[in-house]
Amino acid sequence: MNTLLERESPPMTVGCEMHRLAAELYPFARSITGDGVRRTLETLKREMPLSIYEVPSGTRVFDWTVPREWNISDAWIKNEKGEKIVDLKNSNLHVLNYSVPVHGRFTLDELKGHLFTSAEHPDWIPYRTSYYKEDWGFCMSHKDYERMEEGRYEVLIDSELKPGYLTYGECFVEGLTGEEVLISTHVCHPSLANDNLSGIAASAFLAKQLSGLDSRLSYRFLFIPGTIGAITWLALNESKIRKIRHCLVLACLGDPGMFSYKKSRSGSSPIDRAAINCLRHSGKNYRLQEFIPFGYDERQYNSPGIGIQAGCLMRTPHGMYPEYHTSADDLDLIRPECLEESLGLLLSIMKTLDGDLKYINMNPRCEPQLGKRGLYPPTGGQAERKSAEMALLWVLNLSDGGNSLLDISERSGLPFELVKNAASALAEKGLLGAA
Amino acid sequence: MNTLLERESPPMTVGCEMHRLAAELYPFARSITGDGVRRTLETLKREMPLSIYEVPSGTRVFDWTVPREWNISDAWIKNEKGEKIVDLKNSNLHVLNYSVPVHGRFTLDELKGHLFTSAEHPDWIPYRTSYYKEDWGFCMSHKDYERMEEGRYEVLIDSELKPGYLTYGECFVEGLTGEEVLISTHVCHPSLANDNLSGIAASAFLAKQLSGLDSRLSYRFLFIPGTIGAITWLALNESKIRKIRHCLVLACLGDPGMFSYKKSRSGSSPIDRAAINCLRHSGKNYRLQEFIPFGYDERQYNSPGIGIQAGCLMRTPHGMYPEYHTSADDLDLIRPECLEESLGLLLSIMKTLDGDLKYINMNPRCEPQLGKRGLYPPTGGQAERKSAEMALLWVLNLSDGGNSLLDISERSGLPFELVKNAASALAEKGLLGAA
Amino acid sequence: MNTLLERESPPMTVGCEMHRLAAELYPFARSITGDGVRRTLETLKREMPLSIYEVPSGTRVFDWTVPREWNISDAWIKNEKGEKIVDLKNSNLHVLNYSVPVHGRFTLDELKGHLFTSAEHPDWIPYRTSYYKEDWGFCMSHKDYERMEEGRYEVLIDSELKPGYLTYGECFVEGLTGEEVLISTHVCHPSLANDNLSGIAASAFLAKQLSGLDSRLSYRFLFIPGTIGAITWLALNESKIRKIRHCLVLACLGDPGMFSYKKSRSGSSPIDRAAINCLRHSGKNYRLQEFIPFGYDERQYNSPGIGIQAGCLMRTPHGMYPEYHTSADDLDLIRPECLEESLGLLLSIMKTLDGDLKYINMNPRCEPQLGKRGLYPPTGGQAERKSAEMALLWVLNLSDGGNSLLDISERSGLPFELVKNAASALAEKGLLGAA
Repeated sequence: MNTLLERESPPMTVGCEMHRLAAELYPFARSITGDGVRRTLETLKREMPLSIYEVPSGTRVFDWTVPREWNISDAWIKNEKGEKIVDLKNSNLHVLNYSVPVHGRFTLDELKGHLFTSAEHPDWIPYRTSYYKEDWGFCMSHKDYERMEEGRYEVLIDSELKPGYLTYGECFVEGLTGEEVLISTHVCHPSLANDNLSGIAASAFLAKQLSGLDSRLSYRFLFIPGTIGAITWLALNESKIRKIRHCLVLACLGDPGMFSYKKSRSGSSPIDRAAINCLRHSGKNYRLQEFIPFGYDERQYNSPGIGIQAGCLMRTPHGMYPEYHTSADDLDLIRPECLEESLGLLLSIMKTLDGDLKYINMNPRCEPQLGKRGLYPPTGGQAERKSAEMALLWVLNLSDGGNSLLDISERSGLPFELVKNAASALAEKGLLGAA
Repeated sequence: MNTLLERESPPMTVGCEMHRLAAELYPFARSITGDGVRRTLETLKREMPLSIYEVPSGTRVFDWTVPREWNISDAWIKNEKGEKIVDLKNSNLHVLNYSVPVHGRFTLDELKGHLFTSAEHPDWIPYRTSYYKEDWGFCMSHKDYERMEEGRYEVLIDSELKPGYLTYGECFVEGLTGEEVLISTHVCHPSLANDNLSGIAASAFLAKQLSGLDSRLSYRFLFIPGTIGAITWLALNESKIRKIRHCLVLACLGDPGMFSYKKSRSGSSPIDRAAINCLRHSGKNYRLQEFIPFGYDERQYNSPGIGIQAGCLMRTPHGMYPEYHTSADDLDLIRPECLEESLGLLLSIMKTLDGDLKYINMNPRCEPQLGKRGLYPPTGGQAERKSAEMALLWVLNLSDGGNSLLDISERSGLPFELVKNAASALAEKGLLGAA
Repeated sequence: MNTLLERESPPMTVGCEMHRLAAELYPFARSITGDGVRRTLETLKREMPLSIYEVPSGTRVFDWTVPREWNISDAWIKNEKGEKIVDLKNSNLHVLNYSVPVHGRFTLDELKGHLFTSAEHPDWIPYRTSYYKEDWGFCMSHKDYERMEEGRYEVLIDSELKPGYLTYGECFVEGLTGEEVLISTHVCHPSLANDNLSGIAASAFLAKQLSGLDSRLSYRFLFIPGTIGAITWLALNESKIRKIRHCLVLACLGDPGMFSYKKSRSGSSPIDRAAINCLRHSGKNYRLQEFIPFGYDERQYNSPGIGIQAGCLMRTPHGMYPEYHTSADDLDLIRPECLEESLGLLLSIMKTLDGDLKYINMNPRCEPQLGKRGLYPPTGGQAERKSAEMALLWVLNLSDGGNSLLDISERSGLPFELVKNAASALAEKGLLGAA
């Protein structure tokens, strides 16, 4: 029986594991503070050594203040017959996120100012928030909204908004040097899968995979509420900021759309070049976006007083898929194979950053004799051997102390990995030295 | 009756006033010296405080010498029957500009070397000059020329070429700083409307409109004879040259063609960027020309020893419309609405130069909280509000002391005015300071 | 009769002379060492003052060692009937270049590992070498190869591989300054016409033509075996390297394909700009290639420790024509008119390098009065006169000490020669001085 069972469950792919993690986190009622984030981070702890921090409400963080903590236990609208026509238990999206408590009876007209729908997608529940302006409300499908008849409705929002904490998680994967890559993901969205359980899963599995490698760079993973979380972390961790050399924000990484890379403020920082290099050699279509001061937390990292060059990797960007910020951004929208492909790309970007060093040609006057050192690639197809030979020649030609391996990959048009392998082979034979 | 009269004459548009000015100046027999320019400048004095300068013939101006003054009172060709077949009274163009005096009888063959026509446009009188080589001649329609029969013709050119003055006008509109914009227009062309009564009208009305504003920059308007006038002014005003930050030459601004902007020698000076920015956001087609050392007086301003970065704004450029330098460049070719549109563009270019300052984000670490300061645009359509919000975010993100508002407009793709308004709103709330 | 004879042989064109030289050199059995190169250089001595150098086998040259000298006197394969089915006397290509001596009987199977053919072009004999790995072999047409029957074959390679010399030639054409242009051509290929008897002929005739001119620059022509020859020269002539300002490698210059220019490592060195400028104004199509560390001896010159910016001029590049490195690269593939056109282009590139100086406008404030100095071009068609006038204005405008004549040609779009002529005319009138 055991054997049979094993035959029925082949080893789970990483993509399936990522999807399973997203599915596990899906039901939690996340917001920018509260137990939804706490439970999310506790779950993630299983995947990696995650430190969880609690920052008290009222803490000043640059121009902002950590808000009161919000939690919700129940919310519904009952019609005159006492039937719940909207019920938080059916979807976390039903309540306007950060709604203040309310209990009372309202005519339909009174209620209307507190109801949010999307006429364009009448079956879907939109996702709405009101973090900084006290309000309450319900989000519902336009179809249900249109069915509502005149009359009085009983409304309950059993939420709590009181001094507490903003919670975030941090995972540090130590490398050989103190130079750091910051990987940042927002964890404040309730039951929305692509934005951003996909980002959370990608970040968690990337942390796990990088832990197994002997990286030159260290990696710091942040699981934070959007905007206020990034601002809080930056305000409280100014000493860590100086060590950050590269930064990547992750979101929307599970849908089947092509990859999108949004550049950092400089537009040509190493994270931009590494990401674009990997995309270029992926053999797939992709989309490049210039930096704009809008989007996810790259807004904060790229602000002029912070000065972290942060890119953002997505598949279909926020706002560009119809399900965005609606109940249709569910577990069906994200796919194991897409999550896995995203993870693969992330890993190759990190390896590119990690391996991007400068070397010095130790035999810089004319070419060295490669043949006598057995450096000509012995095996592989002709095109493959030619590429490997060209990589050797390019590395030798450009390793004058001014060009890094990424520079050489860009100029030669050869994949970074091939260039890296050539450099390793040459260094082993003493033909390259550290720059 | 009064009421009726008012109904018949609606308030005159600025474009109509500009056209009326051009029409008033049209009949004067202008040249690079003489009473035609004097009368033109006297007329312009009505529109603005214009200083008129007289520079004596023989004055050395760099490599050149101010020529003798030329005036003309009569000129004609009579056939054997005594009929005037060409008469200066019919068109100022009929005489080769700067013709020496002549009176005598000539056979048709003798005369032919002194007659200029355009076979391509047989109805039009071409415009020709001979400033620096003593000569005389007549310009006439090819049709009239072909009608001339063998025989002897009596010829009179009652001109005067003797020591006198080169006359030019200068109008200074003082701003808050000593940094100056030079606006230069040639005033030497006789009865030609687009080249350059349109430029004269645009310049005069721009001076008038700028006088009413509280500009940071000062504006110096030159109404000068082409080439020798610009050289004379530059030679005699070397101390003023140092204050000039930007320069724009105006010509051919009344025809219905699309705008053309010819760049300064550097190709990327602020006047180039301001003009291109305004054209880009005009919603109209336009033409950009790289600098060449040929054209109007930008040739002189952009010479290496002067070093003023001068652009040139035109609609259809010289030589690119068939009526150019012929009697068909008349008052019908230039249109009130085109003159007015040119003036509007000029004003927006000047406002761009004037407002192009650098600011410092006073809250540079992460975004400031815009909501609590009421900075989110409260009204307008969604697209408009989004643009206004993006302008706020762009100004905050790029105001690190290195970027001016024009830099920010260029990078964001947002109109300069929107960026300027965002900067003003942010400065008012203390979020931006002077760089 | 004498008259008749003269009528039948018009004066030979330079292209025909070049082709005749190639034809004379065609039969020599060249390799990277040996008598084939020696005879080639002795023949070239007739065309120019050529110094011939002999470098002993075993000499260390950077990472390499000058190999033993190779010569061959006979080589064949006989079938069982004693018929020579492959014979060196029919083609120098028949023997694997640098084959060690062999004499014996082999079965077809034993022989097969030593036979090289091209199935793609069954009539052609491929060209193969084994300089640094001891081996022997025959190259033959695939058609002949397929005719070979089972049985035993008698094989002879009567070659000699023993301590001797590497031979190269050097021709120096002295100019007014010590700044040098290096022109390098490989002379190691046996009976192959385009690669590289065409390059040898172009180089020889360029040397001859440049000798007659009063050049500013000096020219050093190298006729060297590929790779090891360039490395040897560089290793033994380090003091000369410092004088080299520009370098051009010549190959494949006789076929009727369009010109190809492969850029130097920097991609924008003067040799690149001069070559591209001449190609652009040639009125013909041409191909530009970015630098790659592969190809001819530009690989060595452009190595980081040598740092000579070397371009490579070809018509159809190596590997891009089907006859490349086969017996079909013969005297029919190269054409007198193509050789002559290549020589013309080379000469114009050299003149561009030679004339590329910076001047100073001595009358930099506004334009000087060209008319009074008789500088306006008096004759020529209107377009031609306009171009000549524009050249004068461009030179005056850009001669601020920062722009060379090549800069001015590039920016103005005018041919270098026109710009050079304008500069000469202006300098003669004292309007330009040396920068």
